Formats: sequence, structure tokens, C-alpha cells
Amino acid sequence: MPALYFTENEYQARLAATKVEMQTSGLDTLILSDPANIFYLTGFDAWAFYAPLFLVVAANEDQPIWIGRFMDAVSARDTTYMREENIRAYPDSFVQSTTSHPVQPVSEILKERRLDKGVIGVEMGAYYYTARIHAEFVNSLPNARFEDAELLVNRVRLVKSSAEQTYMRQAGRIVDAAMSAAVEKCAPGVRECDVVAEIYKAQISGLPDAGGVYTTSPPHFCADERVRTPHGLWTDRPLKRDAPLNIEIAGSRLHYHCPMTRTVFLGRPPDSYRRLAAAVVEGLNTTMGSIRPGMAAEEVELVWRGSIAKHGFEKEARLGYSIGLGFPPTWGERTVSLRPGDKTVLQPGMAFHCMSGLWLDDTGIAITQSFLVTEEGNEPLTQFERELVSIS
Amino acid sequence: MPALYFTENEYQARLAATKVEMQTSGLDTLILSDPANIFYLTGFDAWAFYAPLFLVVAANEDQPIWIGRFMDAVSARDTTYMREENIRAYPDSFVQSTTSHPVQPVSEILKERRLDKGVIGVEMGAYYYTARIHAEFVNSLPNARFEDAELLVNRVRLVKSSAEQTYMRQAGRIVDAAMSAAVEKCAPGVRECDVVAEIYKAQISGLPDAGGVYTTSPPHFCADERVRTPHGLWTDRPLKRDAPLNIEIAGSRLHYHCPMTRTVFLGRPPDSYRRLAAAVVEGLNTTMGSIRPGMAAEEVELVWRGSIAKHGFEKEARLGYSIGLGFPPTWGERTVSLRPGDKTVLQPGMAFHCMSGLWLDDTGIAITQSFLVTEEGNEPLTQFERELVSIS
Repeated sequence: MPALYFTENEYQARLAATKVEMQTSGLDTLILSDPANIFYLTGFDAWAFYAPLFLVVAANEDQPIWIGRFMDAVSARDTTYMREENIRAYPDSFVQSTTSHPVQPVSEILKERRLDKGVIGVEMGAYYYTARIHAEFVNSLPNARFEDAELLVNRVRLVKSSAEQTYMRQAGRIVDAAMSAAVEKCAPGVRECDVVAEIYKAQISGLPDAGGVYTTSPPHFCADERVRTPHGLWTDRPLKRDAPLNIEIAGSRLHYHCPMTRTVFLGRPPDSYRRLAAAVVEGLNTTMGSIRPGMAAEEVELVWRGSIAKHGFEKEARLGYSIGLGFPPTWGERTVSLRPGDKTVLQPGMAFHCMSGLWLDDTGIAITQSFLVTEEGNEPLTQFERELVSIS
Repeated sequence: MPALYFTENEYQARLAATKVEMQTSGLDTLILSDPANIFYLTGFDAWAFYAPLFLVVAANEDQPIWIGRFMDAVSARDTTYMREENIRAYPDSFVQSTTSHPVQPVSEILKERRLDKGVIGVEMGAYYYTARIHAEFVNSLPNARFEDAELLVNRVRLVKSSAEQTYMRQAGRIVDAAMSAAVEKCAPGVRECDVVAEIYKAQISGLPDAGGVYTTSPPHFCADERVRTPHGLWTDRPLKRDAPLNIEIAGSRLHYHCPMTRTVFLGRPPDSYRRLAAAVVEGLNTTMGSIRPGMAAEEVELVWRGSIAKHGFEKEARLGYSIGLGFPPTWGERTVSLRPGDKTVLQPGMAFHCMSGLWLDDTGIAITQSFLVTEEGNEPLTQFERELVSIS
């Protein structure tokens, strides 16, 4: 019997909530490609999405159907609650073939299960639902009508259960430890890659009572003149004295993520950095002080916007985004953004990364905070101090 | 001036080879989405493909056009040789918007550059070219005819230059070090996540003269009864005595990958494991002894097939695949497979991962070898001994 990360009841509740959304959208069948959504509904956990991988949710069936590459069916048996007959596979000859495509046998399975008719929802903009996959489905299932159901399950994921919140808190403790490991290793003359190596080690070892797993994205580690780069790669050059460094990382506990960004200054920060950091910290603290359920996502951003405007700053990019479960290439849930126009009402159990940072032409500061929305207000998921880290 | 990983001449040669293929395929314009192909032609290196990211190659223009999220344009300036006017961006409001899509401003840029007509090649099956992106392009550019150009650049990448071969050899030394770190840490009672933490640390620290970067895929680390799982995730349980463990990892030097898999036995391996390992090692050594340029990909597999058949074994999955440059979710190039039917002729400078492994119902052994095809035969990219590793 597989060691499930959640109770079978919790998986059933998720599936039921998904079916409610399917009914609202008029879908008979939902074909999922987003690995996070497949994981959410079944527990399926293996690196299998490099080849076409699907979870088929039929409105009239009690369990979804997993369909993937034959060798990865082993993992479906090992990590999900699903019945053997609902774990299906396509042969290896279809993988990266120049003459055939995995959707062909997948469509045969749908026909065999009489799921090739009616309205089929697909995740049009999900990372691994390629144009080719969609064209093959449309071609193979002429009796179906396809509708875009992107983000349908992502929206179900917005409010975290108690068990999910536990994993997110553990992820928060992991990223606290990883950032501490980074700061401890940082010193002029140390190669950037050797600092990042310590970050990875801390991320994966995790906590004594809760190990870490891979994060959706590598550390973004941008030193010196690259500090104004938001998503840059580390180098193997040594860190310089009197230079800034931005580190954006996450902790991941069973694929639940808690991100954090800090700016580190190797030496005494110049006034320009200290003033920018003060504005960011003030903006972040003011924002965190205001967040409570019932507020709209755009209202959160407005608090931040007002605070940094007092110092003459403005941020073009959104202030933050919904977090939780994630697989590469992003730990964002791709649903709610803290930005003008997003009227989503915050509810207890939602989680966000408040990406409070400012990138100017030649400087960049980011001091961020991930949090859960609670009944009373919010709960920060990390304890790492909100300040410009200075290493003397 | 950015620190390019290759000379500008080498980038120009790659672009020229791409244009030859475009001409053969009758393409006026090529829109690339595969991050590895974008990196290959320009050097662009940032974690930017979580949002729609394109490189547009026009048959009549001397430089491609980079188009991505506004904040990632900084990285295009930092890591490529491209002129400022060829680095274009869409505003943040298009990112994960419910009312608009990044392809809308991208299409406007194409119109402005008069690239909205004729035949446009797109990578239909590339991971990040979603069904939604394609539908938006078709809708926004009514004067163009779209053709599938998936793998066009991947095929150009097959033969590695001298500089690329250097990075692959470094990646080989990195994975040798990472596997050694894993074996050194493995012992009964040690948590799986703590072994994987050491693997990551070694992968990222890399070599004294060449640091590592993230690999496309996390370590596949499957212990005990999960040893028959090809792409499973580690746990935080302690390793058991007298149990097997499969470790599949890669080293990555500036995104050039060298993968390796080894089976480790914590204790004296039972006869069943030793017999299986002996068959795999014999099959691998026989195969490696035969590989030379001029051979077809399927012929390589035939040598392996013949060798393991003598011991009564058969492998359904392909024996191996082309490697080189890679971004998540796979270090395979998705072009050549070592399997029946693939008639690609091996040429000096091609590189492969010979994935010599056998998974039976309850056991699994993998002892693999990455190699370059040379003028004379082949060059193994790793030195780690080809054997079942036994930890007593």
C-alpha cells in the first residue's frame, strides 16, 4: 500500500470540488496535464511529465484515470490511491517518435472508456499541454468538443487544507534554514557556486523531522552588477567585497513551496542601498500589517503602492502571487496576483508570496514575505528577519 | 559587455546552420520556444521560460529577436550578443492575466518588423509552446501560414563543437564527483534526503576550475522496494541495510549535461542482483566496444540487445538518447534514440547517454555510460567504474 501524503478522504474531497467546477463549466471530461494538478488529485509523484502525461477526470466516474509512459506507471501504483484498472500506459515506442505520438494510444483508451464524446476540458495554457498534444487530441477525438479548462483545478487549490498548511509551514522552516546557510557561507572570495551548493544542501536535507524535496526553480543568485537581474543564474566567480547580492529561493516540503528573497551586502551598504531597503521594509511591514481575510488581492497591492510612493518609488511588476503546490518551472499557482485589477477576495487558507522588491537601473533590493491568510489576519511562513542583510 | 559562454563566431555559425534548415523547410520565420534552442542561438541564460518567451529567427535578418517578460530583458542584455533593438519585451500586466495574453503584444512586434507574413515555423511539441500560445498566434497573425518546425534547431545541436565538447567533459567530471559523494554518504540509517543533499552540493560546487549549474531534472533516487521505479523521488526515510538503491543524476556545466546511473547495494548483493548486474555490465561493455562513427543508432541498440539476450533478458525501453544542452524537464535532446527504427548515422561530436539498465518485477539495475562519438570510436565522458556498487 502506498504511503500517501494525504488521507484518501482528502483526495476524495479535492476530486469532488473539481467535479463541482466541471459541472459549472459544463464539462463531461477533464484532461489534466499540469503535474501539480495531477499530484493534487491523486498524489502521483514522479518525474514523468517530460513525456506526455495525463489525468482524465470523468464526471461520472469515481476515480480519475492516469495515463503516461509505461515505465512511469510503476510510480502511479506506488504513490496514488488509484485502482489498477485506472492506471494506464502507452508503450515506449511512442516516446519521442518521429512517426507516432503518445496521444494516439491515449485517445484509444478514452474511446474504450467511452470518454471520447461530449465536452472535454483541456488545460490550454498549462506548461506541458503543447500545441502538438492539442492538435493530436482534436484529430483523434472527432466526436468531442474541446473547451479551455486551464486553471480550473488551480483555483480549487487556492484554499489550503490543514494538512497542506502543515507542509507549507515546514517549507517555511526549510527556506529559513537555507537562507541562513547562504548567509553563513557568503564572504568575499568565496565562489558563487559554492554558496549555492550550501543552499541546495540545506533545501534538500530540510528539517530533522521533515526532509526537503527539489524546488520548482533553482536559486536565483545575482551578485554585484547582476543584482538588478531578477531571475539570473549564479556563476563560478568569487564574491566581491562591498558588493550586493540578491538571493531568491524556496523551501519545498513534498512539493509545497515557501519562497523568500533577501538582498545581502558584503560590507557596509552605501546610503543608496540603505534608503532603498528602508523603503522596501517599511512597505512590506505596512502591507503585512494590513492583510486580513475579506480584502481583495488588489487592495493588498494598494497598501504597498501607497507606502513606497511616499519615498518616490513605484514597482511595475505585480507585488505577489498565490503559492502552494508547484512543479517546474514555477512555484506560483498562476491564479491570483497581488496587483491592480485582481479582485479575488482573500480567504483563510490562501497563501501568497509578497514579492516586495524594487529594481532600479543599477540597484535592486528584495526583502519578501510568504504568508498564509488566517481567520484573524495572516501568518508569516518564515521567521528570517526582514532587513537588508549586511555581512561585515 | 556580457561574458559569453561561446565566441560570437560560434553563435553566428549556429544561426547560419539554422537558416539553412529553415530554407530547406521553406520557412520565412522561425519562432522558438524551447529554452535550450534559445540559449543555443543567443546565449540567453535566465529562468525566464515560466512566462511565454520567444526567439524569432527571420530568414532575412542578421540577428534573431528576443521577446519575453519585461523584467527578463535585463538578462537578455547581460547574457547575449544581441543588439538593443532586437531585445523586446511585453509589459508585466500580460503575465498570467485573465483578460489578455503575452502573444498579443508579441504579435504586434512581429507585425512591426514585417514578420507576420509567409510561412512561420513553430515548435508544436516543445514543452513550453502551449496550445494556448499557438491558438493566440494563429488568431493574431492571420496573414501567416504556420508549420511545425519542432526539433529543427535540436537537430542542428546534434554535433557538438570543440567548445561544447569541453563543457560536456567538465559535466562528466562533475557527475563523477557527485556520484562519489553519494556513495560516500550512503550508509544504513542515513536519511535518503541527506544523501541527496550531498549529491546536490557536489553537482553545484562542481570542479575547482568549473562550477556546476542546476540540472534539468532532480536526482532520481529510489531505494529498497522502490528500486524498480525509474523516475522516483527520494524520501526522508533512513536507508536500510541489505537493500538496493538506484541513483540517476547528471552533472551540468553551463547547461551541458552528462548523466549517469548506478545501482548501489547496501550490503552484500544477493546472487539475483549480481547476475543481473553482470549481464548489464557485459552488455554495456560490449556496446561501448562497438560504437564508432558511421554506425546507425539502431545498430548500437542491436549490439546491446544481442548481449543481454544471451542471459535471457530484454529491455522494452530505448537503450539511450542524444544528450547535450538541456533545460527542464529533460537533459535528452529529444532527437536521436538508440532503438530499433532509428537510422540516424553516428557522427563525431554527437553525444549519447547509454541507459543500460534492466528493470524486472522486483529488481532494477542500471549501470550507464555517457559518451562522445569520436573520429576513431567513442570517448566515455565519465570515469566512474561500471559495476554494481556494493557498500559493506
